[in-house]
Amino acid sequence: MKPSVGGGWIEAQNSRGQTGLVPEDYIQVRGQCSIDDDEWDDESDDGKSTGGYTWSQSEEGGGTMQLWLYPQTQLDCVVADPKKGTKMYGLKSYIEYQITPNSTNRPVNHRYKHFDWLYERLMEKFGCAFPIPCLPDKQVTGRFEDEFIKMRMERLQGWMSRLCRHPVVANSEVFQLFLTYTDEKDWKIGKRKAEKDETVGVMVFTTMDPEIRELDPTEVEQKCETFSRFTRSMDDRVKDLLSVGHLHWKRCTGPLQKEYQRIGKAFQNLSSVFNTSGYQGEATLTEALTATGKTYEEIAEICAGQPKKDLHFLMETNSEYKGLLGCFPDIIGVHKAAIEKVKEADRLVAMNKIGPQDKHTMAKNLSTMSYALQAEMNHFHSNRIYDYNRVMQLYLQEQVQFYETVSSLYL
Amino acid sequence: MKPSVGGGWIEAQNSRGQTGLVPEDYIQVRGQCSIDDDEWDDESDDGKSTGGYTWSQSEEGGGTMQLWLYPQTQLDCVVADPKKGTKMYGLKSYIEYQITPNSTNRPVNHRYKHFDWLYERLMEKFGCAFPIPCLPDKQVTGRFEDEFIKMRMERLQGWMSRLCRHPVVANSEVFQLFLTYTDEKDWKIGKRKAEKDETVGVMVFTTMDPEIRELDPTEVEQKCETFSRFTRSMDDRVKDLLSVGHLHWKRCTGPLQKEYQRIGKAFQNLSSVFNTSGYQGEATLTEALTATGKTYEEIAEICAGQPKKDLHFLMETNSEYKGLLGCFPDIIGVHKAAIEKVKEADRLVAMNKIGPQDKHTMAKNLSTMSYALQAEMNHFHSNRIYDYNRVMQLYLQEQVQFYETVSSLYL
Repeated sequence: MKPSVGGGWIEAQNSRGQTGLVPEDYIQVRGQCSIDDDEWDDESDDGKSTGGYTWSQSEEGGGTMQLWLYPQTQLDCVVADPKKGTKMYGLKSYIEYQITPNSTNRPVNHRYKHFDWLYERLMEKFGCAFPIPCLPDKQVTGRFEDEFIKMRMERLQGWMSRLCRHPVVANSEVFQLFLTYTDEKDWKIGKRKAEKDETVGVMVFTTMDPEIRELDPTEVEQKCETFSRFTRSMDDRVKDLLSVGHLHWKRCTGPLQKEYQRIGKAFQNLSSVFNTSGYQGEATLTEALTATGKTYEEIAEICAGQPKKDLHFLMETNSEYKGLLGCFPDIIGVHKAAIEKVKEADRLVAMNKIGPQDKHTMAKNLSTMSYALQAEMNHFHSNRIYDYNRVMQLYLQEQVQFYETVSSLYL
Repeated sequence: MKPSVGGGWIEAQNSRGQTGLVPEDYIQVRGQCSIDDDEWDDESDDGKSTGGYTWSQSEEGGGTMQLWLYPQTQLDCVVADPKKGTKMYGLKSYIEYQITPNSTNRPVNHRYKHFDWLYERLMEKFGCAFPIPCLPDKQVTGRFEDEFIKMRMERLQGWMSRLCRHPVVANSEVFQLFLTYTDEKDWKIGKRKAEKDETVGVMVFTTMDPEIRELDPTEVEQKCETFSRFTRSMDDRVKDLLSVGHLHWKRCTGPLQKEYQRIGKAFQNLSSVFNTSGYQGEATLTEALTATGKTYEEIAEICAGQPKKDLHFLMETNSEYKGLLGCFPDIIGVHKAAIEKVKEADRLVAMNKIGPQDKHTMAKNLSTMSYALQAEMNHFHSNRIYDYNRVMQLYLQEQVQFYETVSSLYL
């Protein structure tokens, strides 16, 4: 771990020796704040389960900041080596991907439908609390084409890495099962258990128990409102960027490429005519015209290939965020409903319809939800900054490279 | 005059101290070939007139090469300083341009309609023998807008420079009158004389008298055929280039500019949203997004302004050549008709319908025309190489500049 490189980023090295930037928040938590290392069991609160969640809070400016407790070693995995497999004596074929987590360094194999199964489990269990990124689209035709497999693998890699970065999801039993099952039997037993998991939906909050719960309700509502506005605006802007990006992609690979090719041909054809003049001393000119023509044909290719080099990652990141942003209205809605319920509880206690203990439980649950939502907001922001910093760096590098390459063609 | 810079070009300095490339042929003629310095009078052949034409021939490869005799100092002029004038007590207004030839360094003033008058005279007198470039279009609306005046002036400059480069046209009485008239009276007298000139059309060939006239008729016909094919092909290619150039111009200043602006806005809007997050440590990111957005807006402007810097001159040159190429079918047609006439004369002599002396005169005239056409072909080729070399050099420089400028925006 190297010192801060500015902008809230720290250069870090992962277990595979790859270096990259990590948000400072990922480690500030442990360095600056009181950390609750206890774990809560899903149901019995007896501290034995491995599926518990922890968080911490950090002093920031005047207020406090709720953060998930991030592990010292960030979980990650590599999705690679897509292989065609067959079933039922070759009647059915499928693609299997190899996933290697940095925690075990032992590869496991999964088909797309297993990822889809995992997505269903995570949505069911965490969908109320965290945005679970959408899986890359299903596709019926062309499933076995190399280009499609490569693209799907890249997207599954992005999907897995994003989930690995979420400390609560990454630490969950079902996610760990997916990454570290030992054999088919282990996988089948784990699958059955996960499908029977009852701690899903809002129940997931009952498994969380922050030490400090005194949050100012007005401040919480304000923060939620700010965040809600933020995600809505960001959603609009991300969609704008995606839409103009698609347009630009189409232009670069369509009419612009064709136009550069036509210009290239026009110069070369003029050169060919000049070559038939029978007049002496125009070799330099015809060579220049031919070279210019060829340069334009090269520009056509570079221009058509450029979106894959820069726009691609910008679009992928924004598509991912479009998916994440789409999850927040529901998550915020669940929280709002809980606030209403507690307000309603006040009325019910006054009418003696419920006891003060019931009201206390409801308030406690709301408090946990508020904590979780705020930790999630901060998680979202730090990841957003990380992701956009990375994609912008790459984008700008590739843009410079593009213009330098084209200008060098002329020299 | 500096030594050859390759490709048939020599770096030269004009009387205004501007340097440029000059085709080597412009001076090779005098250096290598026998030069006929005599002049022929328009009508009396007495050597006193200043309107006579001369040429030379140069040995080239195995054959001979007919060339106009180029003057040691190339005539040129500067068209500048457009001024609005009025007539009839301010009821009629017009633009007057100042034309300064390098031969006298004394400016004369002309309106567009004077240029048009000159064009009519030159077409009438030389249209059978040389391609007279078209005048820039007339325009009724917007005649007094700065942009239009600038463009017209630039095109009149190009038109005059091209005519100045033609030794026969440049040396003609009417052209000299246009450039060097001393006062209104001089201009009016000269105008009347030029309008009464009878040595026009095919008669112009009677004023030319090459020393050597033994040209192989088969070779002449072959050369004409080659040249005719060449100009037709070049015409097609020039039109292609103009058409794709127009398309590219429209795209650069239309949809592409708008698209870059939209991308720029999309980045900046995303940056604005990020600024409202209330989350710490994203200044670097929002600055990068804003800078990228602004860069795209700059690219939009550079991209929209680029055609004026490079494509413009390429289009102007090609438009000029489109005009010149359109003149050749008539010129070649006149020559073909003369060949047919001489063939017919053989028959008429056999039938005793004309005397051998008449036939001899007709053959002599044809020979002069063949010489003139071939000198003109060579003139066309050497100018073509000169013009395209120059415009391509400029074009490529501006293209490199464009890509370098854009890549530097990112750094």
